Amino acid sequence: MSSNNYLDHVTIVLHRPRFPENIGAAARAALNMGISRLVLVAPENCDLTRVLRMATHYAADLVENMEVYADLTTALQHFHYVVGTTARIGGHRRELKTPREIAAELVPICANNQVALLFGPEDRGLTNVQLRYCHALVSVPTAGFSSLNLAQAVMILCYELLLAGTKPLDRFVSRLATRRELDGMYEHLKETLLKINFINPENPDYWMQNIRRFFSRVGLRARDVKIIRGICRQIDWYTKQRLETMQQLEME
Amino acid sequence: MSSNNYLDHVTIVLHRPRFPENIGAAARAALNMGISRLVLVAPENCDLTRVLRMATHYAADLVENMEVYADLTTALQHFHYVVGTTARIGGHRRELKTPREIAAELVPICANNQVALLFGPEDRGLTNVQLRYCHALVSVPTAGFSSLNLAQAVMILCYELLLAGTKPLDRFVSRLATRRELDGMYEHLKETLLKINFINPENPDYWMQNIRRFFSRVGLRARDVKIIRGICRQIDWYTKQRLETMQQLEME
Repeated sequence: MSSNNYLDHVTIVLHRPRFPENIGAAARAALNMGISRLVLVAPENCDLTRVLRMATHYAADLVENMEVYADLTTALQHFHYVVGTTARIGGHRRELKTPREIAAELVPICANNQVALLFGPEDRGLTNVQLRYCHALVSVPTAGFSSLNLAQAVMILCYELLLAGTKPLDRFVSRLATRRELDGMYEHLKETLLKINFINPENPDYWMQNIRRFFSRVGLRARDVKIIRGICRQIDWYTKQRLETMQQLEME
Repeated sequence: MSSNNYLDHVTIVLHRPRFPENIGAAARAALNMGISRLVLVAPENCDLTRVLRMATHYAADLVENMEVYADLTTALQHFHYVVGTTARIGGHRRELKTPREIAAELVPICANNQVALLFGPEDRGLTNVQLRYCHALVSVPTAGFSSLNLAQAVMILCYELLLAGTKPLDRFVSRLATRRELDGMYEHLKETLLKINFINPENPDYWMQNIRRFFSRVGLRARDVKIIRGICRQIDWYTKQRLETMQQLEME
Protein backbone atom coordinates (compact mmCIF):
# COMPACT_ATOMS: atom_id res chain seq x y z
CA MET A 1 0.00 0.00 0.00
CA SER A 2 2.34 2.68 -1.24
CA SER A 3 -0.23 5.44 -0.70
CA ASN A 4 0.06 5.00 3.04
CA ASN A 5 3.49 6.51 3.47
CA TYR A 6 2.13 9.04 5.97
CA LEU A 7 2.37 6.07 8.32
CA ASP A 8 6.17 6.25 8.02
CA HIS A 9 5.96 9.40 10.14
CA VAL A 10 4.18 7.67 13.00
CA THR A 11 6.00 6.07 15.93
CA ILE A 12 4.54 3.98 18.73
CA VAL A 13 6.10 5.03 22.04
CA LEU A 14 5.59 2.66 24.98
CA HIS A 15 6.40 4.29 28.31
CA ARG A 16 7.58 1.84 31.00
CA PRO A 17 5.88 -1.26 29.55
CA ARG A 18 5.91 -4.07 32.11
CA PHE A 19 5.57 -7.24 30.05
CA PRO A 20 7.79 -8.23 27.11
CA GLU A 21 4.82 -10.07 25.55
CA ASN A 22 2.94 -6.80 25.28
CA ILE A 23 5.88 -5.15 23.53
CA GLY A 24 5.99 -7.98 21.00
CA ALA A 25 2.23 -8.01 20.45
CA ALA A 26 2.21 -4.22 20.06
CA ALA A 27 5.01 -4.46 17.48
CA ARG A 28 3.06 -7.01 15.44
CA ALA A 29 -0.16 -4.99 15.69
CA ALA A 30 1.54 -1.77 14.57
CA LEU A 31 3.20 -3.47 11.62
CA ASN A 32 -0.08 -5.14 10.64
CA MET A 33 -1.42 -1.63 10.17
CA GLY A 34 1.64 -0.29 8.35
CA ILE A 35 3.44 1.41 11.25
CA SER A 36 7.02 0.24 11.56
CA ARG A 37 8.60 2.46 14.19
CA LEU A 38 8.63 1.52 17.87
CA VAL A 39 10.26 3.32 20.78
CA LEU A 40 10.51 1.97 24.32
CA VAL A 41 11.05 4.19 27.33
CA ALA A 42 12.52 2.52 30.41
CA PRO A 43 10.89 -0.90 29.86
CA GLU A 44 10.56 -2.88 33.07
CA ASN A 45 11.48 -6.11 31.31
CA CYS A 46 12.65 -6.31 27.74
CA ASP A 47 13.49 -10.02 27.46
CA LEU A 48 13.89 -10.27 23.68
CA THR A 49 13.00 -13.95 23.53
CA ARG A 50 9.61 -13.18 25.03
CA VAL A 51 9.19 -10.04 22.93
CA LEU A 52 9.94 -11.92 19.72
CA ARG A 53 7.62 -14.81 20.54
CA MET A 54 4.67 -12.41 20.37
CA ALA A 55 6.07 -10.23 17.62
CA THR A 56 6.38 -13.40 15.49
CA HIS A 57 8.85 -13.70 12.65
CA TYR A 58 6.77 -11.14 10.77
CA ALA A 59 7.65 -8.22 13.09
CA ALA A 60 11.15 -9.37 14.07
CA ASP A 61 12.84 -6.62 12.04
CA LEU A 62 10.71 -3.96 13.70
CA VAL A 63 11.72 -5.28 17.14
CA GLU A 64 15.41 -5.36 16.21
CA ASN A 65 15.27 -1.75 15.03
CA MET A 66 13.31 -0.34 17.95
CA GLU A 67 14.94 2.42 19.99
CA VAL A 68 15.15 2.27 23.78
CA TYR A 69 15.45 5.42 25.92
CA ALA A 70 15.94 5.92 29.63
CA ASP A 71 13.53 8.83 29.99
CA LEU A 72 10.44 10.17 28.27
CA THR A 73 11.73 13.71 27.63
CA THR A 74 14.69 12.41 25.62
CA ALA A 75 12.52 9.89 23.79
CA LEU A 76 10.06 12.57 22.67
CA GLN A 77 12.41 15.45 21.91
CA HIS A 78 12.37 15.16 18.11
CA PHE A 79 8.63 14.66 17.70
CA HIS A 80 6.44 17.47 16.42
CA TYR A 81 3.14 16.12 17.68
CA VAL A 82 2.52 13.79 20.60
CA VAL A 83 -0.79 12.02 21.15
CA GLY A 84 -1.29 10.64 24.66
CA THR A 85 -3.57 7.67 25.25
CA THR A 86 -5.57 7.36 28.43
CA ALA A 87 -8.37 5.30 29.87
CA ARG A 88 -9.15 7.93 32.48
CA ILE A 89 -11.99 10.29 32.04
CA GLY A 90 -11.16 12.72 34.80
CA GLY A 91 -10.36 16.42 34.59
CA HIS A 92 -9.29 16.47 30.96
CA ARG A 93 -12.50 14.84 29.80
CA ARG A 94 -13.37 17.76 27.58
CA GLU A 95 -10.26 17.35 25.52
CA LEU A 96 -10.50 13.57 25.00
CA LYS A 97 -10.86 12.48 21.41
CA THR A 98 -11.87 9.11 19.99
CA PRO A 99 -9.38 7.09 17.94
CA ARG A 100 -11.43 7.83 14.83
CA GLU A 101 -11.40 11.58 15.40
CA ILE A 102 -7.69 11.74 16.17
CA ALA A 103 -6.85 9.53 13.18
CA ALA A 104 -8.64 11.92 10.81
CA GLU A 105 -6.71 14.83 12.30
CA LEU A 106 -3.37 13.02 12.20
CA VAL A 107 -3.34 12.09 8.52
CA PRO A 108 -2.61 15.66 7.30
CA ILE A 109 -0.37 16.38 10.32
CA CYS A 110 1.75 13.32 9.49
CA ALA A 111 2.58 14.68 6.05
CA ASN A 112 5.13 17.17 7.42
CA ASN A 113 5.59 16.12 11.03
CA GLN A 114 6.88 13.28 13.12
CA VAL A 115 4.01 12.00 15.25
CA ALA A 116 4.31 9.92 18.45
CA LEU A 117 1.46 7.79 19.79
CA LEU A 118 2.31 7.54 23.48
CA PHE A 119 1.07 4.68 25.69
CA GLY A 120 1.61 4.44 29.45
CA PRO A 121 2.41 1.42 31.62
CA GLU A 122 -0.17 -1.40 31.67
CA ASP A 123 -1.24 -0.89 35.28
CA ARG A 124 -1.20 2.85 35.77
CA GLY A 125 -1.26 4.54 32.38
CA LEU A 126 0.22 7.96 31.79
CA THR A 127 0.27 10.45 34.67
CA ASN A 128 -1.61 13.73 34.47
CA VAL A 129 1.70 15.56 34.14
CA GLN A 130 2.69 13.40 31.18
CA LEU A 131 -0.73 13.89 29.58
CA ARG A 132 -0.38 17.65 29.92
CA TYR A 133 2.65 17.62 27.64
CA CYS A 134 0.71 15.91 24.84
CA HIS A 135 -0.74 17.88 21.95
CA ALA A 136 -3.88 15.78 22.00
CA LEU A 137 -5.43 13.06 24.15
CA VAL A 138 -7.25 9.99 22.93
CA SER A 139 -9.21 7.28 24.67
CA VAL A 140 -10.49 4.04 23.14
CA PRO A 141 -14.22 3.69 23.79
CA THR A 142 -15.13 0.56 25.73
CA ALA A 143 -18.24 -0.88 27.32
CA GLY A 144 -18.43 0.19 30.93
CA PHE A 145 -15.06 1.97 30.87
CA SER A 146 -13.11 -1.28 31.17
CA SER A 147 -9.37 -1.28 30.54
CA LEU A 148 -7.78 -2.66 27.40
CA ASN A 149 -4.69 -4.78 27.03
CA LEU A 150 -1.79 -2.53 25.94
CA ALA A 151 -1.28 -4.22 22.56
CA GLN A 152 -5.03 -4.09 21.90
CA ALA A 153 -5.04 -0.34 22.50
CA VAL A 154 -2.08 0.01 20.11
CA MET A 155 -4.00 -2.03 17.55
CA ILE A 156 -7.13 0.13 17.68
CA LEU A 157 -5.17 3.36 17.26
CA CYS A 158 -3.08 1.98 14.38
CA TYR A 159 -6.16 0.46 12.72
CA GLU A 160 -7.97 3.79 12.74
CA LEU A 161 -4.87 5.53 11.39
CA LEU A 162 -4.55 3.10 8.50
CA LEU A 163 -8.24 3.44 7.68
CA ALA A 164 -8.25 7.23 7.94
CA GLY A 165 -5.79 7.45 5.07
CA THR A 166 -7.29 4.71 2.94
CA LYS A 167 -9.89 5.52 0.36
CA PRO A 168 -12.89 3.23 0.63
CA LEU A 169 -12.75 0.36 -1.83
CA ASP A 170 -14.67 0.76 -5.00
CA ARG A 171 -17.21 -1.93 -4.35
CA PHE A 172 -17.82 -4.27 -7.22
CA VAL A 173 -21.57 -4.35 -7.73
CA SER A 174 -22.83 -6.93 -10.18
CA ARG A 175 -25.17 -5.69 -12.88
CA LEU A 176 -28.70 -5.76 -11.53
CA ALA A 177 -31.50 -7.09 -13.70
CA THR A 178 -33.26 -4.52 -15.88
CA ARG A 179 -36.94 -3.80 -15.46
CA ARG A 180 -37.57 -5.63 -18.76
CA GLU A 181 -35.65 -8.72 -17.57
CA LEU A 182 -37.61 -8.69 -14.31
CA ASP A 183 -40.97 -8.32 -16.03
CA GLY A 184 -40.14 -11.21 -18.37
CA MET A 185 -39.15 -13.33 -15.37
CA TYR A 186 -42.28 -12.52 -13.35
CA GLU A 187 -44.50 -13.33 -16.34
CA HIS A 188 -42.68 -16.62 -16.86
CA LEU A 189 -42.87 -17.41 -13.14
CA LYS A 190 -46.61 -16.70 -13.03
CA GLU A 191 -47.30 -19.05 -15.93
CA THR A 192 -45.17 -21.77 -14.42
CA LEU A 193 -46.66 -21.44 -10.94
CA LEU A 194 -50.16 -21.49 -12.44
CA LYS A 195 -49.27 -24.60 -14.42
CA ILE A 196 -48.18 -26.50 -11.32
CA ASN A 197 -51.17 -25.16 -9.38
CA PHE A 198 -49.02 -23.31 -6.85
CA ILE A 199 -51.04 -20.13 -7.22
CA ASN A 200 -54.72 -19.60 -7.39
CA PRO A 201 -55.79 -19.05 -11.04
CA GLU A 202 -58.67 -16.87 -9.89
CA ASN A 203 -56.38 -14.24 -8.39
CA PRO A 204 -52.85 -14.88 -9.64
CA ASP A 205 -51.62 -11.31 -9.10
CA TYR A 206 -52.38 -11.48 -5.39
CA TRP A 207 -50.02 -14.41 -5.02
CA MET A 208 -47.43 -12.93 -7.31
CA GLN A 209 -47.30 -9.87 -5.12
CA ASN A 210 -45.62 -11.81 -2.30
CA ILE A 211 -43.15 -13.30 -4.70
CA ARG A 212 -42.33 -9.90 -6.17
CA ARG A 213 -41.85 -8.48 -2.71
CA PHE A 214 -39.43 -11.25 -1.78
CA PHE A 215 -37.34 -10.84 -4.92
CA SER A 216 -37.28 -7.05 -4.64
CA ARG A 217 -35.73 -7.37 -1.22
CA VAL A 218 -32.94 -9.53 -2.59
CA GLY A 219 -32.00 -7.14 -5.39
CA LEU A 220 -31.92 -9.57 -8.31
CA ARG A 221 -28.94 -9.57 -10.63
CA ALA A 222 -29.07 -10.37 -14.35
CA ARG A 223 -27.48 -13.72 -13.55
CA ASP A 224 -30.13 -14.54 -10.94
CA VAL A 225 -32.91 -13.87 -13.46
CA LYS A 226 -31.31 -16.34 -15.87
CA ILE A 227 -31.15 -19.01 -13.18
CA ILE A 228 -34.75 -18.50 -12.14
CA ARG A 229 -36.02 -18.61 -15.73
CA GLY A 230 -33.90 -21.72 -16.26
CA ILE A 231 -35.68 -23.41 -13.37
CA CYS A 232 -39.06 -22.33 -14.79
CA ARG A 233 -38.16 -23.78 -18.19
CA GLN A 234 -37.14 -27.02 -16.51
CA ILE A 235 -40.46 -27.19 -14.67
CA ASP A 236 -42.27 -26.46 -17.93
CA TRP A 237 -40.38 -29.28 -19.61
CA TYR A 238 -41.02 -31.67 -16.73
CA THR A 239 -44.73 -30.92 -16.51
CA LYS A 240 -45.04 -31.28 -20.29
CA GLN A 241 -43.22 -34.65 -20.15
CA ARG A 242 -45.48 -35.75 -17.32
CA LEU A 243 -48.54 -34.72 -19.25
CA GLU A 244 -47.40 -36.67 -22.30
CA THR A 245 -46.61 -39.71 -20.19
CA MET A 246 -50.06 -39.59 -18.62
CA GLN A 247 -51.69 -39.19 -22.00
CA GLN A 248 -49.70 -42.17 -23.29
CA LEU A 249 -50.76 -44.23 -20.25
CA GLU A 250 -54.38 -43.32 -20.84
CA MET A 251 -54.14 -44.37 -24.45
CA GLU A 252 -52.69 -47.78 -23.63
CA MET B 1 -24.11 1.33 28.65
CA SER B 2 -27.65 0.04 28.74
CA SER B 3 -28.34 1.22 25.19
CA ASN B 4 -25.95 -1.40 23.85
CA ASN B 5 -28.07 -4.43 24.60
CA TYR B 6 -28.02 -5.46 20.93
CA LEU B 7 -24.56 -6.74 21.88
CA ASP B 8 -26.24 -9.37 24.09
CA HIS B 9 -27.28 -11.09 20.86
CA VAL B 10 -23.71 -11.41 19.59
CA THR B 11 -21.52 -14.44 20.24
CA ILE B 12 -17.85 -14.89 19.42
CA VAL B 13 -17.30 -18.39 18.01
CA LEU B 14 -13.69 -19.60 17.84
CA HIS B 15 -13.29 -22.63 15.61
CA ARG B 16 -10.35 -24.90 16.60
CA PRO B 17 -8.30 -22.22 18.37
CA ARG B 18 -4.77 -23.52 18.97
CA PHE B 19 -3.50 -21.44 21.88
CA PRO B 20 -5.24 -20.98 25.23
CA GLU B 21 -3.71 -17.49 25.52
CA ASN B 22 -5.59 -16.41 22.41
CA ILE B 23 -8.87 -17.68 23.87
CA GLY B 24 -8.28 -15.65 27.03
CA ALA B 25 -7.21 -12.53 25.18
CA ALA B 26 -10.22 -12.83 22.85
CA ALA B 27 -12.53 -13.15 25.88
CA ARG B 28 -11.12 -9.99 27.44
CA ALA B 29 -11.29 -8.08 24.13
CA ALA B 30 -14.91 -9.09 23.53
CA LEU B 31 -15.95 -8.10 27.05
CA ASN B 32 -14.10 -4.77 26.74
CA MET B 33 -16.47 -4.02 23.88
CA GLY B 34 -19.61 -5.27 25.63
CA ILE B 35 -19.85 -8.76 24.14
CA SER B 36 -20.10 -11.42 26.81
CA ARG B 37 -20.78 -14.66 24.96
CA LEU B 38 -18.01 -16.96 23.81
CA VAL B 39 -18.26 -20.36 22.13
CA LEU B 40 -15.33 -22.68 21.42
CA VAL B 41 -15.45 -25.39 18.81
CA ALA B 42 -12.97 -28.25 19.24
CA PRO B 43 -10.19 -26.19 20.84
CA GLU B 44 -6.78 -27.76 20.39
CA ASN B 45 -5.73 -26.78 23.89
CA CYS B 46 -8.04 -25.28 26.45
CA ASP B 47 -5.79 -25.14 29.51
CA LEU B 48 -7.90 -22.92 31.74
CA THR B 49 -4.96 -21.59 33.73
CA ARG B 50 -3.44 -20.20 30.56
CA VAL B 51 -6.82 -18.99 29.27
CA LEU B 52 -7.54 -17.14 32.51
CA ARG B 53 -4.10 -15.54 32.70
CA MET B 54 -4.88 -13.61 29.51
CA ALA B 55 -8.58 -13.15 30.21
CA THR B 56 -7.58 -11.50 33.50
CA HIS B 57 -9.87 -11.41 36.50
CA TYR B 58 -12.06 -9.01 34.54
CA ALA B 59 -13.21 -11.63 31.99
CA ALA B 60 -13.06 -14.69 34.27
CA ASP B 61 -16.87 -14.99 34.41
CA LEU B 62 -17.11 -14.94 30.64
CA VAL B 63 -14.54 -17.74 30.41
CA GLU B 64 -16.33 -19.83 33.02
CA ASN B 65 -19.62 -19.47 31.14
CA MET B 66 -18.28 -20.20 27.67
CA GLU B 67 -19.73 -23.16 25.79
CA VAL B 68 -17.54 -25.78 24.14
CA TYR B 69 -18.74 -27.89 21.20
CA ALA B 70 -17.16 -30.77 19.35
CA ASP B 71 -18.23 -29.68 15.87
CA LEU B 72 -19.10 -26.49 14.06
CA THR B 73 -22.52 -27.54 12.78
CA THR B 74 -23.79 -28.20 16.30
CA ALA B 75 -22.21 -25.01 17.61
CA LEU B 76 -23.91 -22.85 15.00
CA GLN B 77 -27.32 -24.53 14.81
CA HIS B 78 -29.25 -21.94 16.83
CA PHE B 79 -27.78 -18.85 15.22
CA HIS B 80 -29.79 -16.81 12.74
CA TYR B 81 -26.89 -15.01 11.13
CA VAL B 82 -23.28 -16.14 10.88
CA VAL B 83 -20.46 -13.79 9.89
CA GLY B 84 -17.27 -15.53 8.80
CA THR B 85 -13.92 -13.80 9.18
CA THR B 86 -11.14 -14.37 6.69
CA ALA B 87 -7.78 -12.95 5.76
CA ARG B 88 -7.95 -14.47 2.30
CA ILE B 89 -8.92 -12.45 -0.67
CA GLY B 90 -9.43 -15.22 -3.15
CA GLY B 91 -12.55 -16.23 -5.04
CA HIS B 92 -15.07 -14.65 -2.67
CA ARG B 93 -13.34 -11.27 -2.86
CA ARG B 94 -16.46 -9.61 -4.21
CA GLU B 95 -18.46 -10.49 -1.16
CA LEU B 96 -15.90 -9.41 1.45
CA LYS B 97 -17.01 -6.62 3.72
CA THR B 98 -14.98 -4.42 6.04
CA PRO B 99 -15.58 -4.60 9.81
CA ARG B 100 -17.16 -1.15 9.66
CA GLU B 101 -19.59 -2.13 6.91
CA ILE B 102 -20.60 -5.38 8.56
CA ALA B 103 -21.00 -3.69 11.95
CA ALA B 104 -23.46 -1.17 10.50
CA GLU B 105 -25.45 -4.02 8.97
CA LEU B 106 -25.39 -6.14 12.11
CA VAL B 107 -26.81 -3.58 14.55
CA PRO B 108 -30.39 -3.86 13.19
CA ILE B 109 -30.02 -7.60 12.53
CA CYS B 110 -29.00 -8.16 16.18
CA ALA B 111 -32.26 -6.71 17.43
CA ASN B 112 -34.22 -9.86 16.56
CA ASN B 113 -31.57 -12.41 15.77
CA GLN B 114 -28.74 -14.33 17.36
CA VAL B 115 -25.55 -13.42 15.53
CA ALA B 116 -22.30 -15.43 15.52
CA LEU B 117 -18.94 -13.91 14.63
CA LEU B 118 -16.96 -16.91 13.49
CA PHE B 119 -13.15 -17.05 13.59
CA GLY B 120 -11.02 -19.89 12.22
CA PRO B 121 -7.83 -21.44 13.60
CA GLU B 122 -4.79 -19.14 13.96
CA ASP B 123 -2.73 -20.78 11.25
CA ARG B 124 -5.22 -21.74 8.56
CA GLY B 125 -8.37 -19.71 9.07
CA LEU B 126 -11.77 -20.96 7.96
CA THR B 127 -11.95 -23.24 4.94
CA ASN B 128 -13.81 -22.23 1.80
CA VAL B 129 -16.54 -24.73 2.63
CA GLN B 130 -17.00 -23.18 6.08
CA LEU B 131 -17.03 -19.68 4.59
CA ARG B 132 -19.73 -20.74 2.13
CA TYR B 133 -22.10 -21.44 5.00
CA CYS B 134 -21.77 -17.92 6.39
CA HIS B 135 -24.35 -15.24 5.67
CA ALA B 136 -21.63 -12.63 5.23
CA LEU B 137 -17.84 -12.50 5.09
CA VAL B 138 -15.62 -9.91 6.67
CA SER B 139 -11.92 -9.21 6.48
CA VAL B 140 -9.95 -6.77 8.65
CA PRO B 141 -7.97 -4.38 6.42
CA THR B 142 -4.22 -4.53 7.01
CA ALA B 143 -1.13 -3.07 5.42
CA GLY B 144 0.23 -5.47 2.83
CA PHE B 145 -2.34 -8.17 3.59
CA SER B 146 -0.49 -9.31 6.72
CA SER B 147 -2.20 -11.64 9.16
CA LEU B 148 -3.57 -10.54 12.52
CA ASN B 149 -3.33 -12.25 15.87
CA LEU B 150 -6.65 -14.01 16.59
CA ALA B 151 -7.53 -11.90 19.64
CA GLN B 152 -6.65 -8.72 17.73
CA ALA B 153 -9.06 -9.68 14.96
CA VAL B 154 -11.75 -10.35 17.58
CA MET B 155 -11.03 -6.92 19.09
CA ILE B 156 -11.41 -5.03 15.81
CA LEU B 157 -14.74 -6.69 15.00
CA CYS B 158 -16.12 -6.11 18.50
CA TYR B 159 -14.85 -2.53 18.57
CA GLU B 160 -16.63 -1.72 15.33
CA LEU B 161 -19.80 -3.38 16.59
CA LEU B 162 -19.78 -1.33 19.80
CA LEU B 163 -19.18 1.88 17.87
CA ALA B 164 -21.80 1.14 15.22
CA GLY B 165 -24.49 1.19 17.90
CA THR B 166 -23.15 4.13 19.86
CA LYS B 167 -24.28 7.62 19.10
CA PRO B 168 -21.34 10.01 18.74
CA LEU B 169 -20.66 11.96 21.90
CA ASP B 170 -22.04 15.45 22.07
CA ARG B 171 -18.74 17.25 22.09
CA PHE B 172 -18.42 19.93 24.67
CA VAL B 173 -17.26 23.04 22.84
CA SER B 174 -16.30 25.96 25.03
CA ARG B 175 -17.88 29.30 24.16
CA LEU B 176 -15.76 31.01 21.56
CA ALA B 177 -14.99 34.72 21.92
CA THR B 178 -17.48 37.06 20.26
CA ARG B 179 -16.41 39.41 17.47
CA ARG B 180 -16.70 42.30 19.93
CA GLU B 181 -14.47 40.58 22.51
CA LEU B 182 -11.92 39.84 19.80
CA ASP B 183 -11.94 43.42 18.47
CA GLY B 184 -11.45 44.77 22.00
CA MET B 185 -8.57 42.39 22.52
CA TYR B 186 -6.84 43.20 19.22
CA GLU B 187 -7.16 46.95 19.92
CA HIS B 188 -5.71 46.42 23.39
CA LEU B 189 -2.91 44.25 22.01
CA LYS B 190 -2.02 46.81 19.36
CA GLU B 191 -1.71 49.60 21.93
CA THR B 192 0.38 47.44 24.22
CA LEU B 193 2.68 46.18 21.48
CA LEU B 194 3.14 49.75 20.22
CA LYS B 195 3.95 50.87 23.74
CA ILE B 196 6.72 48.29 24.15
CA ASN B 197 7.96 49.02 20.61
CA PHE B 198 7.26 45.50 19.39
CA ILE B 199 5.44 46.74 16.29
CA ASN B 200 6.32 49.51 13.91
CA PRO B 201 4.19 52.63 14.71
CA GLU B 202 4.31 53.63 11.04
CA ASN B 203 2.44 50.56 9.89
CA PRO B 204 0.89 48.89 12.94
CA ASP B 205 -1.87 47.11 11.01
CA TYR B 206 0.65 45.24 8.89
CA TRP B 207 2.15 43.72 12.03
CA MET B 208 -1.20 43.09 13.64
CA GLN B 209 -2.24 41.09 10.60
CA ASN B 210 0.19 38.29 11.49
CA ILE B 211 -1.00 38.26 15.07
CA ARG B 212 -4.64 38.13 13.97
CA ARG B 213 -3.86 35.30 11.62
CA PHE B 214 -2.20 33.32 14.40
CA PHE B 215 -5.07 33.79 16.85
CA SER B 216 -7.72 33.00 14.23
CA ARG B 217 -6.07 29.66 13.63
CA VAL B 218 -6.31 28.82 17.32
CA GLY B 219 -10.01 29.63 17.64
CA LEU B 220 -9.92 31.83 20.71
CA ARG B 221 -12.35 31.18 23.53
CA ALA B 222 -13.84 33.84 25.80
CA ARG B 223 -11.50 32.62 28.53
CA ASP B 224 -8.44 32.99 26.31
CA VAL B 225 -9.35 36.58 25.49
CA LYS B 226 -9.51 37.37 29.21
CA ILE B 227 -6.06 35.86 29.79
CA ILE B 228 -4.51 37.76 26.87
CA ARG B 229 -6.03 41.06 27.98
CA GLY B 230 -4.81 40.31 31.51
CA ILE B 231 -1.27 39.97 30.22
CA CYS B 232 -1.65 43.23 28.25
CA ARG B 233 -2.85 45.04 31.38
CA GLN B 234 0.12 43.65 33.27
CA ILE B 235 2.49 44.91 30.60
CA ASP B 236 0.75 48.30 30.68
CA TRP B 237 1.19 48.44 34.45
CA TYR B 238 4.81 47.37 34.27
CA THR B 239 5.74 49.86 31.54
CA LYS B 240 3.94 52.61 33.45
CA GLN B 241 5.84 51.69 36.65
CA ARG B 242 9.08 51.69 34.73
CA LEU B 243 8.33 55.06 33.21
CA GLU B 244 7.58 56.50 36.65
CA THR B 245 10.76 55.00 38.09
CA MET B 246 12.81 56.49 35.27
CA GLN B 247 11.17 59.89 35.71
CA GLN B 248 11.88 59.66 39.44
CA LEU B 249 15.50 58.76 38.74
CA GLU B 250 15.82 61.70 36.35
CA MET B 251 14.38 64.06 38.94
CA GLU B 252 16.81 62.93 41.61
